[in-house]
Amino acid sequence: MKYGIIGVGGVGGYYGGNLARIGKDVHFLFHSDYEYVAEHGLRVDSCDGNFLLSHVNAYCKATDMPQCDIVLVALKTVNERLLRELLPPLLKSDTLVVLIQNGVGVEADMQSWFPNVSLAAGLAFICSAKAGPGHVNHQCYGSINIGNFSCKNQERIDILLDDLHEAGIEAASVEYHEARWKKAVWNMPFNGLTVVLNTQTDQLLANPATEQLVRDLMMEVVGASRALGVDHVDEPFVEKMMAMTRVMTPYSPSMKLDFDFHRPMEIEYIYSKPIAIAKEAGFHMAKLEMLEQQLRFLSSSVK
Amino acid sequence: MKYGIIGVGGVGGYYGGNLARIGKDVHFLFHSDYEYVAEHGLRVDSCDGNFLLSHVNAYCKATDMPQCDIVLVALKTVNERLLRELLPPLLKSDTLVVLIQNGVGVEADMQSWFPNVSLAAGLAFICSAKAGPGHVNHQCYGSINIGNFSCKNQERIDILLDDLHEAGIEAASVEYHEARWKKAVWNMPFNGLTVVLNTQTDQLLANPATEQLVRDLMMEVVGASRALGVDHVDEPFVEKMMAMTRVMTPYSPSMKLDFDFHRPMEIEYIYSKPIAIAKEAGFHMAKLEMLEQQLRFLSSSVK
Repeated sequence: MKYGIIGVGGVGGYYGGNLARIGKDVHFLFHSDYEYVAEHGLRVDSCDGNFLLSHVNAYCKATDMPQCDIVLVALKTVNERLLRELLPPLLKSDTLVVLIQNGVGVEADMQSWFPNVSLAAGLAFICSAKAGPGHVNHQCYGSINIGNFSCKNQERIDILLDDLHEAGIEAASVEYHEARWKKAVWNMPFNGLTVVLNTQTDQLLANPATEQLVRDLMMEVVGASRALGVDHVDEPFVEKMMAMTRVMTPYSPSMKLDFDFHRPMEIEYIYSKPIAIAKEAGFHMAKLEMLEQQLRFLSSSVK
Repeated sequence: MKYGIIGVGGVGGYYGGNLARIGKDVHFLFHSDYEYVAEHGLRVDSCDGNFLLSHVNAYCKATDMPQCDIVLVALKTVNERLLRELLPPLLKSDTLVVLIQNGVGVEADMQSWFPNVSLAAGLAFICSAKAGPGHVNHQCYGSINIGNFSCKNQERIDILLDDLHEAGIEAASVEYHEARWKKAVWNMPFNGLTVVLNTQTDQLLANPATEQLVRDLMMEVVGASRALGVDHVDEPFVEKMMAMTRVMTPYSPSMKLDFDFHRPMEIEYIYSKPIAIAKEAGFHMAKLEMLEQQLRFLSSSVK
């Protein structure tokens, strides 16, 4: 199995790095870090133990990469369109492409660009960030769920799961739609509200007005899921997410970090796409649409 | 006609000051400015000409004031409950109380506290602020519409209008519900959004996402008005408000100024009351409710 990693930040560096650590044949596409990694290797500082890959199959151009059996895409979705150029050199007729990305709708868009490619969603539960060139800082968690979107070869997905397990990573197969929308239940309220109100998860839940607002927004995701016929995205799950967030350490979601560090926010796939998909199914996510509108304002006034 | 003025800031000082300037019998209730005004008088710098009232009927306690025929209340609604103490000493059986205050629902609350009092709404279109102790700075506009809420003596309202005209102030009689809800069409979107997004009216309309959001919020006020059977609060009026705002100089509504200067915001009467009134009539102002929730969060984190 030849692995390709596109997007070697905190997430791609962690999963790709761990697969390489156990001896898998992993090929990394770097952008600005290429020179550094080619010389110094890839370093992963992890709560589960640090390691350094002194020799890495590093590339600075997708066209120099070999065709791969499994490609893990961990690019921010703000760069989604780049994949139309980056992906083709890595593709064989049976390549499995796993999108470890935020939001709802990435697989559908990707499939429209590459109608024959085998796609799966990678739902990562991980705190990990790039600490510097060729340097990943993995703070905690690390499990990943794989939701099959269009891969007819289940064996390929099983191999990926086996390899991840071998690398010490918790990984499981999940129903695609349920997994994407369940993640949206948490992602849609907290990413945007922490930006607009300049706060963290704990403060939002400590105030009765925003605690209710978070619940309202989660229930809009439940409403959308119902309209789309997605199972198990329901009120008990909302309460589970509320309870889970209450016991978490105060947290800044990725969009808050992007905003604070003046990086583009993933508004399109975390908000616009799911809102449009829900609307098409007859469900209006009114408050989430307002959050999207507020984020669009903040994102354009930052420029 | 004896006039009483409760709340002598930019608005109460302007209208009361002008009535006193033309020789009407006006009695002002001051709070922190009492000593200063008793000594130096009340100064009004106005785009229509400055004037100083060197002698003013100034009081620091409502219980020292005479009973009045017309009371103009220009207190911020965050202090609404104070009126339960401040108003009774000024009331006769036929006193007309005009609430020159923001939001929706002040008259209904006041009526529940004083079931027999004659009430009217004062809808002021004015840019005026307190510049210092006993010093009003009136920048522009200044017209006021009077909406009869529960006054059976129309003559009393006509006298008020005549006196205002005599003082050079544009004033007219309007239908109460229509006037309050029309004002809400502008007030509800712009007051809250300028706070939450830390911006001004012009920026909100310059961005396509928030321009749409402003229109969405205005249309929720239209929806509420329809549910309540209030006439003439419709889409053409929304478009008129949008066009009017577009040609205004960049503007920070009163709630934005309150927030910036760490004063309490009028969330209760600008948001909570109208939202509750609409909900009772079967109309859910979803996005405005979210704005209220966000403002509640910001207002409590400021403390």
